[in-house]
Amino acid sequence: MRIVFHGQNAANFIPGFRDLVGPGHEIAGLPDHLAASTDVAAYQAADVIVGIRLDKQLPPLTKIKLYHAPAAGIDAIDPSLLPAGTPVCNCFGHEHAIAEYVMTALLLRHVPIPDADRRLRQGDWHYWGKPAVLRTELGSGTIGLLGFGHIGKAIASRAKAFGMRVTVCNRTAVPPGPLVDQSFMFDRLRDFMASADAIVVSLPHVPETTGFVGAAEIAAMRPTALILNVGRGPVIDETALYDALADKRIGGAIIDTWYQYPTAGNATPQPSRLSFAELDNVVMTPHMSGWTHEMIRRRQQTVAENIRRLAASLPLINCVA
Amino acid sequence: MRIVFHGQNAANFIPGFRDLVGPGHEIAGLPDHLAASTDVAAYQAADVIVGIRLDKQLPPLTKIKLYHAPAAGIDAIDPSLLPAGTPVCNCFGHEHAIAEYVMTALLLRHVPIPDADRRLRQGDWHYWGKPAVLRTELGSGTIGLLGFGHIGKAIASRAKAFGMRVTVCNRTAVPPGPLVDQSFMFDRLRDFMASADAIVVSLPHVPETTGFVGAAEIAAMRPTALILNVGRGPVIDETALYDALADKRIGGAIIDTWYQYPTAGNATPQPSRLSFAELDNVVMTPHMSGWTHEMIRRRQQTVAENIRRLAASLPLINCVA
Repeated sequence: MRIVFHGQNAANFIPGFRDLVGPGHEIAGLPDHLAASTDVAAYQAADVIVGIRLDKQLPPLTKIKLYHAPAAGIDAIDPSLLPAGTPVCNCFGHEHAIAEYVMTALLLRHVPIPDADRRLRQGDWHYWGKPAVLRTELGSGTIGLLGFGHIGKAIASRAKAFGMRVTVCNRTAVPPGPLVDQSFMFDRLRDFMASADAIVVSLPHVPETTGFVGAAEIAAMRPTALILNVGRGPVIDETALYDALADKRIGGAIIDTWYQYPTAGNATPQPSRLSFAELDNVVMTPHMSGWTHEMIRRRQQTVAENIRRLAASLPLINCVA
Repeated sequence: MRIVFHGQNAANFIPGFRDLVGPGHEIAGLPDHLAASTDVAAYQAADVIVGIRLDKQLPPLTKIKLYHAPAAGIDAIDPSLLPAGTPVCNCFGHEHAIAEYVMTALLLRHVPIPDADRRLRQGDWHYWGKPAVLRTELGSGTIGLLGFGHIGKAIASRAKAFGMRVTVCNRTAVPPGPLVDQSFMFDRLRDFMASADAIVVSLPHVPETTGFVGAAEIAAMRPTALILNVGRGPVIDETALYDALADKRIGGAIIDTWYQYPTAGNATPQPSRLSFAELDNVVMTPHMSGWTHEMIRRRQQTVAENIRRLAASLPLINCVA
């Protein structure tokens, strides 16, 4: 097979891929912008393209047999540009990484290790057993998971080990069980928003979820509650979130997925047109939550498995179109 | 009953205690140093003393019916100073707090949220999906628990939810099971020290555990491994630990329990006679890991329960002498 990894994101999945997929394949990496005619030719000759963006700016594809996102989100892939019947597959394997990010961010709100370390180095025993500096336990709180797919389930199992109560709001019904204490569907989103001390958004970005968490939903939150976004930025209304934080109407936000990203022309943009960086009740990280060596490996295994299946005319896994 | 909370540590457990223990008791708080004759009289008249220090400097006790530590550690309580047969009881309830501290400290080694936040506020997307900045997952590692009492078990259940491998070294045999992958007894301490990426010491300080983790045990650790002390400082040999860190022979240390503590004469001591504060591979916190509002409440419930049992001539719980 001719396997093309298209773009900078996909390039992350090349190292070590040859050993996983086995012999007999041509593997090439191409840049996001296909300027050279040799790059265009290689792109159009591919049997398999691994990438996260397929739009009308790219050369037309006629020979492709499989388009594989090395990611869960396929919002920048237009399947109508593929020959009829071409499968589009995606990958998970980021859920454990994201769950570690979420638990770290939440625990840091309770256990002030960095500040305690800075102080004790100066001989300041500030946090040493005094009622005034006692903390509360994360485990005493409730976590609310907006979206209960791979990510939500991975967070729930860790939250439960800490003794947390878990509420869920999902498009399809989720029965209460060992990981879920209370469950809502989307028609009860505002009740869900009021149900927890930390709301974790892991929804994908599709037309129906744009601005899904708006001013009214944020207003329904507990006044001390946190909101975390590890799904996609635009699922939370940008202005409503900023205003609620600036007015201290919620406890704070931990935002990993944003409204503006680096581009070829600007490598260091602010992640929003609004001044989140001037707020003291937000933690801002650069869409890093899912990026671990283990995530890369798990996704490489999925892509390699599908290429083996394609070569053997077996049914593919993780097909989304 | 006349209930005396003796000293600053015990004073933390007074607020709210009256409602827990019920009516019909006199509750008083006394300072660590009993100078006033009224304080000495109140101390000697107590039916129950709640405290963590009983030594020959204190007035003799003849009427006491129960000495209750509001703590697990009873290393500063000399039961030979009590009338024969006086029960000494202790408390737990700190294990969930300490487990949250340990998981926070370990996760921070993997998920650099504070640094990512500082950078993104400046428009620096450093941690945004590039192979050079990929992190590893905590869940891929092995945690080694030196001591498998309340604290060790609370850590194990959380570590397992993250997918970690768990090894244990304990005075008594611990059978492998859902929380434990591999188990050692004290005679195989060095093999245990080599078995994990993070060694968590939660042993009490008794004569046999002083310096239990010495130079040879630290030398057996993996060169990248961390050591955490949430038990008692002197269980890890002070000089051996400092030398291994200064020489970068291990990956680092997270130290919450120390060799020197604040005293009446010095409220801001360095926590060791050695310069841990000058090392960049140690996280230093002031014996804070167990101190949460929830811990206080759980211990108050234990003390109140034992006072009810004492009044009703029922067997006490958590008796250690």
